[in-house]
Amino acid sequence: MSFTIQNVLVAVDQGYATVDVQIVDNHIQAIAPNLDVVGTVIDGQNKLLLPGFVNAHTHSSEMWQRGIIPPVPLELWIAELYDFAPLEPDQVYLSALGTAVETLLSGGTSVVDHLVLIPGKEIETIASAVRAYQEIGIRAFIGPLIQDESLTAGIPDGGAQREHKTYVRSTEATLALMQEAVDKFHNPSEGVNILVAPTGIQLCSDALFEGCRELSDRYNLCRHAHLLETKAQEKLAQEKYGCSAVEHLKQLGYLSDRTSLAHCVWLSDNDIAILAETRSTVVHNPLSNLRLGSGIAPILKYRQAGVNVSFGCDGAASNDSQDLLEAIKIGSILHNITDMDYHHWITPRESVEIASLGGAKGLNVADELGSLTEGKKADLVLYDLTSLSLLPRTDPIGLLILGRPTQAVDSVWVNGKRVVADSKVTTIDVDALRKNLFERSEWSINRQSATVSQIEAHYRGVMGLPEQLSKSYS
Amino acid sequence: MSFTIQNVLVAVDQGYATVDVQIVDNHIQAIAPNLDVVGTVIDGQNKLLLPGFVNAHTHSSEMWQRGIIPPVPLELWIAELYDFAPLEPDQVYLSALGTAVETLLSGGTSVVDHLVLIPGKEIETIASAVRAYQEIGIRAFIGPLIQDESLTAGIPDGGAQREHKTYVRSTEATLALMQEAVDKFHNPSEGVNILVAPTGIQLCSDALFEGCRELSDRYNLCRHAHLLETKAQEKLAQEKYGCSAVEHLKQLGYLSDRTSLAHCVWLSDNDIAILAETRSTVVHNPLSNLRLGSGIAPILKYRQAGVNVSFGCDGAASNDSQDLLEAIKIGSILHNITDMDYHHWITPRESVEIASLGGAKGLNVADELGSLTEGKKADLVLYDLTSLSLLPRTDPIGLLILGRPTQAVDSVWVNGKRVVADSKVTTIDVDALRKNLFERSEWSINRQSATVSQIEAHYRGVMGLPEQLSKSYS
Repeated sequence: MSFTIQNVLVAVDQGYATVDVQIVDNHIQAIAPNLDVVGTVIDGQNKLLLPGFVNAHTHSSEMWQRGIIPPVPLELWIAELYDFAPLEPDQVYLSALGTAVETLLSGGTSVVDHLVLIPGKEIETIASAVRAYQEIGIRAFIGPLIQDESLTAGIPDGGAQREHKTYVRSTEATLALMQEAVDKFHNPSEGVNILVAPTGIQLCSDALFEGCRELSDRYNLCRHAHLLETKAQEKLAQEKYGCSAVEHLKQLGYLSDRTSLAHCVWLSDNDIAILAETRSTVVHNPLSNLRLGSGIAPILKYRQAGVNVSFGCDGAASNDSQDLLEAIKIGSILHNITDMDYHHWITPRESVEIASLGGAKGLNVADELGSLTEGKKADLVLYDLTSLSLLPRTDPIGLLILGRPTQAVDSVWVNGKRVVADSKVTTIDVDALRKNLFERSEWSINRQSATVSQIEAHYRGVMGLPEQLSKSYS
Repeated sequence: MSFTIQNVLVAVDQGYATVDVQIVDNHIQAIAPNLDVVGTVIDGQNKLLLPGFVNAHTHSSEMWQRGIIPPVPLELWIAELYDFAPLEPDQVYLSALGTAVETLLSGGTSVVDHLVLIPGKEIETIASAVRAYQEIGIRAFIGPLIQDESLTAGIPDGGAQREHKTYVRSTEATLALMQEAVDKFHNPSEGVNILVAPTGIQLCSDALFEGCRELSDRYNLCRHAHLLETKAQEKLAQEKYGCSAVEHLKQLGYLSDRTSLAHCVWLSDNDIAILAETRSTVVHNPLSNLRLGSGIAPILKYRQAGVNVSFGCDGAASNDSQDLLEAIKIGSILHNITDMDYHHWITPRESVEIASLGGAKGLNVADELGSLTEGKKADLVLYDLTSLSLLPRTDPIGLLILGRPTQAVDSVWVNGKRVVADSKVTTIDVDALRKNLFERSEWSINRQSATVSQIEAHYRGVMGLPEQLSKSYS
């Protein structure tokens, strides 16, 4: 599959240049003015070409619950989420398609799906997501979301004596499941990668982390997890380990240059030094962190310490969208209020690098992806600079990152295959997807989470909040 | 102009109801199921009807510079802004149209344009904006941006002896200009309202505030100003008045139930009490406050103190968009990180009320606008709930406010006149606007602001920042 994009704007050191870009055998062959035409011609006039971004942390099936969970912190939010989680693999297929459509149309060519598994249908769940991503043609990094402790164990005890149910699946069975997932689905050359992805220290035993690390070493798999998303998790780590969660993960050998960690809101300076030393990646999910009141991840500190950073949308029930450009914008400007010295603030070009090369580094594929470099794979996005949202003409990357681009993605190629043309996904029937999502759902607001009712008083107590529970959410 | 919207979802206390809505003579005549058809029929099936939102603070001509100003704080940003401000009234006409298009397509039916005036062409500037808003049909509140001190006076002295140039226009001439603007353009029944809008304490004399207050009293005009957007302005107020800016404005009699104040980031608890007592309105511009590193306005405190709040996009060079739904989303979820108790967090329905009724209150028109109430004017927005961005179906208002709606605005009526149908503005030629904006601009990033070079060292000194000025923005 070969093609040549002619007369397209690309970013260069001192601004922009108009060049041709040759793609041969799914790779970038050459970038220069006035190249010979190879294969199909793509008109790049008045368009900007960037490397595809990475949606470096999401949970696709949360799309079924976007817009409906009231404004509450993670520990209560997740209780409601799990009370109403979808139970059919074909729902997972549809929401993976929806996640991919929104990611592609906001500049993403790769998605990291920390995939919630349907109990008893774990392999079918993964198969459904794999099918969706293969059909639409997005590059997929699927981390089956595993744990071996029950949900209530994720809230600190705060001195109270509490019993937790045994989790439905044992550590051994979970690791066997991961082995099966790797055997069945891990296929990087076809754009499907399996990650080991224990949900995080709040719900996982050391044995689970260690088993995942071994699998990762054996098959060269990337590692993923949530890390210190909330203040409650910081407390929990102290209760559980008597040290910080980062120190504990380091001791377990889980941190590495192919480990990416979602959120990282509550890290100390010492924790940050450990991430730098182990060359771990922080996945910043700004919208989710605001929506759940988790806090502001100290991204400027990470950058100053040399820690690699990437951007994620997080699941659509805590965002409540999969618009990667929105996550990039907010994840960039949010930090300006954390440091008076604007010399440290993230520039739009730095945002692009975080979203593309930062994402690739976190997935151990920076030699193949993440920049417009001859020899790299053709994961490319072409933006239409005549979109009203990108006018008047000023700095194209400034408009794209700081503005609110609408219908600005003209074309997307993943591994040299075109999956978006004329601002429409061409590989699947998006109208049929829309109809399916419509028919499989209903408008409703009056649902009550039984688990939230059970745990809320303890949560408020341990977090030092007043007892009253009166306000109803509408 | 009469019409009936049939079978449309509206919000009611316990969720949603499907109703018909009759509009007669530009007013909401009736809201109930199964009404007789009056006038044209509009199909409301699978659509949500909300009152129009107010874009309660913007500067339309900043659109010419969106995307291009590097990440710097307000005091440097505004120096660059003014160095490159548009100088032709027809540019103002085009950017007012662009501002209106983006506001309408993100749920807004009213815009407060704190309009930067072209020196020597002040009345023509206002006439250009009025013409644009009248042609497109958005309800306009135009506050000509006036001051009587030069830009350098807006930065605290910090003990240094500084001279400032005399401002180009005297206080008297400025008030005469305002009188002329009122005489020529103030016409509420036609949807054009003139506000008195001194830019703020940082660049205005007491005489200017007092003259504006008198004009406001004489013609029943709303009052507007920036207030304590930055830490630097807080310092400046102390230098200038020896008390807080809010105390000073109260002494001048500027605060009232028809006064709206943009930003309000650096207010003390005593200042907040004064806003409540004077029934002033806070206009929250969250994206601008992040982009410029101004801080987080204490919106939850305002709400608890009973201060009315509304949402604005602020000018497109500090946002860098005019998507009101984005401002509402971020202006709602941002505050979850400022208060551990989620009982205080803003719910999506509260966000809708802030954006509509809160906006109307701040403009002294809550008896006529801001809710779906029989007898009120028909400023209405119809959202298409079959948009992929609002699927699967859950809580429509939750999806709209917390999600990232794209092409979700199906129709907009202002004063009963339809200005958007099938997600397209019908009153102007948007393609021609796009071409005009394209042709009148060019891609560039290598501009240098002379004023920034002059003032940056003083700014860094007075704000306690280290001296180095090396980083270049790209």
